[in-house]
Amino acid sequence: MSAMQELMAYQRDTEALGQIAGRLGWDQETVMPRGATEQRGEEIGALEGVLHARRTDPRIGDWLAKAEPADEVEEAHLRHIRRSYERQTRIPARLATELARVTSLAQGIWAEARGRNDVGMFLPTLKQVVALKREEAAALANGGDLYDALLDDYEPGATAESIGAMFDRLRPRLVALREAVLGAAHQPAPLEGHFPAEAQMRLARMLASAFGYDWTRGRLDLAVHPFSSGSGNDARITTRVVEAEPLNCIYSTVHETGHACYELGIDPDYLLTPLGNGVSMGVHESQSRIYENQLGRSRAFTGWLFQRMTEEFGALSVADAEAFYGTVNRVQPGYIRTEADEVNYNLHVMLRFDLERQMIAGTLEVADLEEAWNARFLADFGVAVDLPANGMLQDVHWSVGLFGYFPTYSLGNVYAGCLNKALRAEVPDVDAALARGTAAPATEWLRDKVQRHGGLYQPREVIARACGEEPSEAPLLDYLEAKFGDIYKL
Amino acid sequence: MSAMQELMAYQRDTEALGQIAGRLGWDQETVMPRGATEQRGEEIGALEGVLHARRTDPRIGDWLAKAEPADEVEEAHLRHIRRSYERQTRIPARLATELARVTSLAQGIWAEARGRNDVGMFLPTLKQVVALKREEAAALANGGDLYDALLDDYEPGATAESIGAMFDRLRPRLVALREAVLGAAHQPAPLEGHFPAEAQMRLARMLASAFGYDWTRGRLDLAVHPFSSGSGNDARITTRVVEAEPLNCIYSTVHETGHACYELGIDPDYLLTPLGNGVSMGVHESQSRIYENQLGRSRAFTGWLFQRMTEEFGALSVADAEAFYGTVNRVQPGYIRTEADEVNYNLHVMLRFDLERQMIAGTLEVADLEEAWNARFLADFGVAVDLPANGMLQDVHWSVGLFGYFPTYSLGNVYAGCLNKALRAEVPDVDAALARGTAAPATEWLRDKVQRHGGLYQPREVIARACGEEPSEAPLLDYLEAKFGDIYKL
Repeated sequence: MSAMQELMAYQRDTEALGQIAGRLGWDQETVMPRGATEQRGEEIGALEGVLHARRTDPRIGDWLAKAEPADEVEEAHLRHIRRSYERQTRIPARLATELARVTSLAQGIWAEARGRNDVGMFLPTLKQVVALKREEAAALANGGDLYDALLDDYEPGATAESIGAMFDRLRPRLVALREAVLGAAHQPAPLEGHFPAEAQMRLARMLASAFGYDWTRGRLDLAVHPFSSGSGNDARITTRVVEAEPLNCIYSTVHETGHACYELGIDPDYLLTPLGNGVSMGVHESQSRIYENQLGRSRAFTGWLFQRMTEEFGALSVADAEAFYGTVNRVQPGYIRTEADEVNYNLHVMLRFDLERQMIAGTLEVADLEEAWNARFLADFGVAVDLPANGMLQDVHWSVGLFGYFPTYSLGNVYAGCLNKALRAEVPDVDAALARGTAAPATEWLRDKVQRHGGLYQPREVIARACGEEPSEAPLLDYLEAKFGDIYKL
Repeated sequence: MSAMQELMAYQRDTEALGQIAGRLGWDQETVMPRGATEQRGEEIGALEGVLHARRTDPRIGDWLAKAEPADEVEEAHLRHIRRSYERQTRIPARLATELARVTSLAQGIWAEARGRNDVGMFLPTLKQVVALKREEAAALANGGDLYDALLDDYEPGATAESIGAMFDRLRPRLVALREAVLGAAHQPAPLEGHFPAEAQMRLARMLASAFGYDWTRGRLDLAVHPFSSGSGNDARITTRVVEAEPLNCIYSTVHETGHACYELGIDPDYLLTPLGNGVSMGVHESQSRIYENQLGRSRAFTGWLFQRMTEEFGALSVADAEAFYGTVNRVQPGYIRTEADEVNYNLHVMLRFDLERQMIAGTLEVADLEEAWNARFLADFGVAVDLPANGMLQDVHWSVGLFGYFPTYSLGNVYAGCLNKALRAEVPDVDAALARGTAAPATEWLRDKVQRHGGLYQPREVIARACGEEPSEAPLLDYLEAKFGDIYKL
């Protein structure tokens, strides 16, 4: 066997073990008995120890030195493996195992603290996680910026500076749009009523199907914080059900369907190779967000959805499809990021981006986080946080060590804006199909332009190739101003 | 750290990774999407490769040579680790990985073949599995008997000769009892009617609770072939629902509850150590069988169950609790081992024991298995097999490589007979509690006498210590003759 073949055979087992870690994560958040939490921490710690040992095996260095790529695909394989090897060899095995163990436990503590609205219960663990992540960042940064070192894990090539500049360009137009919308004379009505859990789940399945989810290679379950998990031929989605708020379940489902369809849409030749996963969190989020917003919250699709909801739940509190379109896109200064409308969403991310940069820089102590969060929330949204579960305890991310992850949500929104512009220019019948309850013309274009490539191209590159131009904030902002200007009759 | 401490720390991670393999097995048989079958095979293969490498790591040999046990517990740890090390180092890594991969795929193929009653579809895979198991047996046997080498994996210390002798002593009294029962003038009525799946699952949960199942450390799901899985603080059970046959779901549930309670009852100090699992399949089955039969099918408990079933399903087709007791214990020459009554059950096992010994010895070709099965079934039970799903395709075991496993079911029945005799002698209020719907006095005695010890004692030793005498077939046969003599008014 050549060095390239040996490396790829070795890598295949590592990818398979990485998939197993994903399965354990899914299990933990959907079906695992509560009493298993500590034991699961040890199990995940042991597996992460194995993965870390494999990813830092010195043979990889030898193979990388000798491997001769035959084509673009093999070059991309080597790029991913080299990147992982260089990052992982900087992290001591002890730290990798400890991080896996602590974050596994922290997730359970976070969930309980959130349920009890008890910040104090969560702080000691969060402090531990932040300390470990700072240690990891220092090992990775090699003298460079700590936050950039973490961000690079989720979005290769991105920096805090480039993200900060993006936010600087987004903020004024988003804030202006929000103020105009909130001050508008015309305000869509909220959706009121009781929406039984079973019917919501039935609708959720229908929605995943409408967006092309392959049920033979996935499944839908309930979770506290909806997520998607796995790749290749096993990409599962989760949702949540609140009986007074069916739009929560509906759009969580469509969002996670977008993530899972990305994984399921990757070229089967890339299965269990470094190209067999979505290339970055930003590109991943571009898929979930375009499914959720530009497609799922479009006038065309909400027209179809209005009919389905009427069938499932009887007459709704809003009169017709046009009113429902406004309701689905209602702009409000809510507490919760995952429930935020398209106008407010990125403002929620900006808050987290600034706070987590400070925590990683060491300029914000975990003990002061709640105060900082609440002050910033009041400043940005004009509303005081009422409960920790609506404030700093709302997201799972920090408990599981995901620092540098939040800004990829906004990158995803920006990329979704770019993709939507190109999609609409190239595919004429998107809305006609959505009005019939199928996203197929759109999802086929996305599979061909983005999803099937997996990790073949760099994140910005895959978007640029799909759109025929460099990504920028303009298409997203133009889309938002046009859509909400229309809905709010500005 | 001493050699003992180093060995135990290393072993802990291996145990944790072994638990992960169990979780994947659970996932595969309960929730995994069908399209993930092949990928899962690769995932399990990669994990088994890691486990095999860890279990054969030469450092274990060094630690074993230097480790000084401080007490009985550490001696038992070393005994388990030495045994595993000696067995595993005989199996080449390639064979271990190949076995894991092939049996993972074979399970899916078996399930499909069973569904379609298509033996031909299953044979090529089974042939592959048998060839690999013979190779494994040859590596393990080191010149000794091939079948004994496999049997020893499930029941340390047992041999085909000792099992054969046990069957020789069981068979005549069981056959005589069966003939007397089938020829009796009094015959209990079958249970007839339609029993909705939801109510059966509700009842299944109630039954697991009645037998002390700890829901914070387990869960109940559906599976094609009911099983229990996991240990420590995550021991899950599965059941199946046939709407015309609620007793299937009921006693599968109680049976698997017995297995899970054994794992959950082990001393928490043994968590993720070699003592933290049930000590053998025979002892495991003694727990599931005593829960299911000597307790669950007792007159006292079926009296309570009759009331609960009447509440769930309305009036039953049998008139009263006494008639229901007969119905639950009805003896019939059915096709399916897992549905067999207590009198026939071990006869089903004897058939499998003889056929699998021949397959491993190479005196029965896989291609001839169906004919051999059907001929033997007709001879033993007086009925011709109608469909492969009622014949050689009914059990999952051979597809997943479990050769040498079946006889442990009968060992478990024999051990359950011994334990029941001792339990009834020592604990006076077992039946009074069962009549009130709780097995607590019995399960507490079993936890104290058997379950909490985990792997501390040898299999026969743990039963002998619990009963105060060497295990033998007599208590089981005495119990069966008394019970069925009474029910059938012999």
